[in-house]
Amino acid sequence: MSEHIPPGTAWYSLPSPFPMKRGGQLHGARLAYETWGRLNADASNAILILPGMSPDAHAAHSEADPRPGWWDWMIGPGKPIDTRRWFVVCVNPLGSCKGSTGPASIDPATGQPYRLRFPELSIEDMADAASHLVRGLGITQLACVVGNSMGGMAALALLARHPGIARSHVNICGAARALPFSIAIRSLQREAIRLDPHWNDGQYDDQAYPETGMRIARKLGVITYRSALEWDGRFGRVRLDPEQRDDDTPFGLEFEVERYLEGHARRFVRAFDPNSYLYLSRSMDWFDLGESHGGDVHAVLATLTGLRQALVIGVKTDILFPIQQQEEIAAGLRSAGCQTRFLAMPSPQGHDAFLVDEARFGPALAEFLHTVPLHAHDPGKVA
Amino acid sequence: MSEHIPPGTAWYSLPSPFPMKRGGQLHGARLAYETWGRLNADASNAILILPGMSPDAHAAHSEADPRPGWWDWMIGPGKPIDTRRWFVVCVNPLGSCKGSTGPASIDPATGQPYRLRFPELSIEDMADAASHLVRGLGITQLACVVGNSMGGMAALALLARHPGIARSHVNICGAARALPFSIAIRSLQREAIRLDPHWNDGQYDDQAYPETGMRIARKLGVITYRSALEWDGRFGRVRLDPEQRDDDTPFGLEFEVERYLEGHARRFVRAFDPNSYLYLSRSMDWFDLGESHGGDVHAVLATLTGLRQALVIGVKTDILFPIQQQEEIAAGLRSAGCQTRFLAMPSPQGHDAFLVDEARFGPALAEFLHTVPLHAHDPGKVA
Repeated sequence: MSEHIPPGTAWYSLPSPFPMKRGGQLHGARLAYETWGRLNADASNAILILPGMSPDAHAAHSEADPRPGWWDWMIGPGKPIDTRRWFVVCVNPLGSCKGSTGPASIDPATGQPYRLRFPELSIEDMADAASHLVRGLGITQLACVVGNSMGGMAALALLARHPGIARSHVNICGAARALPFSIAIRSLQREAIRLDPHWNDGQYDDQAYPETGMRIARKLGVITYRSALEWDGRFGRVRLDPEQRDDDTPFGLEFEVERYLEGHARRFVRAFDPNSYLYLSRSMDWFDLGESHGGDVHAVLATLTGLRQALVIGVKTDILFPIQQQEEIAAGLRSAGCQTRFLAMPSPQGHDAFLVDEARFGPALAEFLHTVPLHAHDPGKVA
Repeated sequence: MSEHIPPGTAWYSLPSPFPMKRGGQLHGARLAYETWGRLNADASNAILILPGMSPDAHAAHSEADPRPGWWDWMIGPGKPIDTRRWFVVCVNPLGSCKGSTGPASIDPATGQPYRLRFPELSIEDMADAASHLVRGLGITQLACVVGNSMGGMAALALLARHPGIARSHVNICGAARALPFSIAIRSLQREAIRLDPHWNDGQYDDQAYPETGMRIARKLGVITYRSALEWDGRFGRVRLDPEQRDDDTPFGLEFEVERYLEGHARRFVRAFDPNSYLYLSRSMDWFDLGESHGGDVHAVLATLTGLRQALVIGVKTDILFPIQQQEEIAAGLRSAGCQTRFLAMPSPQGHDAFLVDEARFGPALAEFLHTVPLHAHDPGKVA
């Protein structure tokens, strides 16, 4: 998978052994990350970005890697996450295949890829690993931890397990626990991969690769990342041009929306490790901030200490992480005494809106971060 | 597939040849149907039910088949569709595998099942076939045509292509055209079947059967037939008991919601013909009442004549046939001068609510049908 790791990647070695929440441990594990801007003298101006399931750490372009990142309009000099002011770190989660140690990595005990011998992966493991990176980079306290989607889960785990690690938080389309509709969708994605004979209990290679399972998993993902409202306007009932159609294939593609899904599948299938996909997907199903801390979600959120300010954003058209889940996060943080702003975005793009709705998400983050003090001892401005 | 045809089924022979809208024709084709109640002397008290994609014609129990039907609480003496008053006909759509002629039927030209030699199937073909059944049963004019889901599409095609065939209409979770989100879901269901090597371009048999593709298609169907809201209350994050889990299967089932999907898949996979599934699924994608009649949907609906009263019902939690689509139908029927009542049901069960939310759908249909005159010349009561 090395060709899919961005050239600007830096690596951080985790303590070895690194214990995993559900049992087992990793030896010689590392995290891939990228940074932008400069850490200030008291190491207090860092923003950590915890991305969703599939993006790599290349959130924005840099000298080392001038290709646009997946949040290029969000991060940079003068942009909403302003790298003249902030030192920005984006980390590829533990368990991913984009540079951090995961099921496709070599197990030092065997010299072979872990595959299904990788220990069970939880959101909490991603959070613990990220906490080591924060300390390893010499950051006193994060000015802000920003979590998107799965990263929004990991950010809550980070705040709950490492009190005081951040003084502010932006949670975007995240959740404090997985609910059955999302579990059902992810379970079906995993089943499509598992039932592909080429998956072969994780023992695939480039020649015998679970292409069909990954295609179906990705297309189902894309369907749940966007929204019916967006697609009505974007695709309607537009057909493909005759030369784009494969009329010899029974039940082949005919509508523009089908070609869109096809393009997403083609770009993804060979670029993401199937076993890593399974591990990351299941970690989300398992996540329940309440269960992990012996209480209900609200009670656990209400005990988060050290967090002064938060911005919680949901999207009204999100079916995968529905907006009630962000309302739940915001209510919990308020009970913790954290000054919390909740935004219900009317973006048509569903769960993925934060990746594309620059006009709404850019100003929201810019305004919020303007109120976050640069130094840990500043009182901060009132939003 | 014969074991899946209900014992109370009657058959109606379609004219031979029966021309198909997109080309080709059927010879010796027939429709499976069941009836309840009695046709009155002037043959004016008939209600035709056009079901969704997968149900058979056994909508309610009868002497010939005492098993409960899929709408048993709706149809019967003293029930919302009261068989003391109405003669009720439920038809299995053309192209299905539940008794009507479809891809699994024997092609008289070859003595072999049609499989992919079955002509392209459209919603309009189902409507035309149903119109022959109505005439064949000696019905002067339907008192009402009730269409659910795919049947709601077929009902609109029936009304548009056979003016005056019914004097009232109930459209439940239907649509006047397929939109891209639903097309994407159905396209992915078809792809899961098509990519199953056992599908084999439609040349499967009971030994080599596209079980995996059908499992995935069905589970994705069930996910989109229900709603996140319902499942939060019904399943939450409840786990399976240890003895119900198969811990030896990597990434095996763990949550109650996964077992629910598994049960649905098991019951369906061998009970529905995969080729029939593909044909019916695609017919919905193709459906656009506007395209078929050279106008936009509203304009075509506004020209429907002869329809005096309509009840259009949508469900707020329906993601497959979203409620805007029923609003569109209601607005169009009003423009046609049809006295139209629109109900936006707050049922949590999503698209499937009409099958299970007896408390809301029962009274709605009972009240509406109470206003439909028994005889064609009655002025009818005002709803």
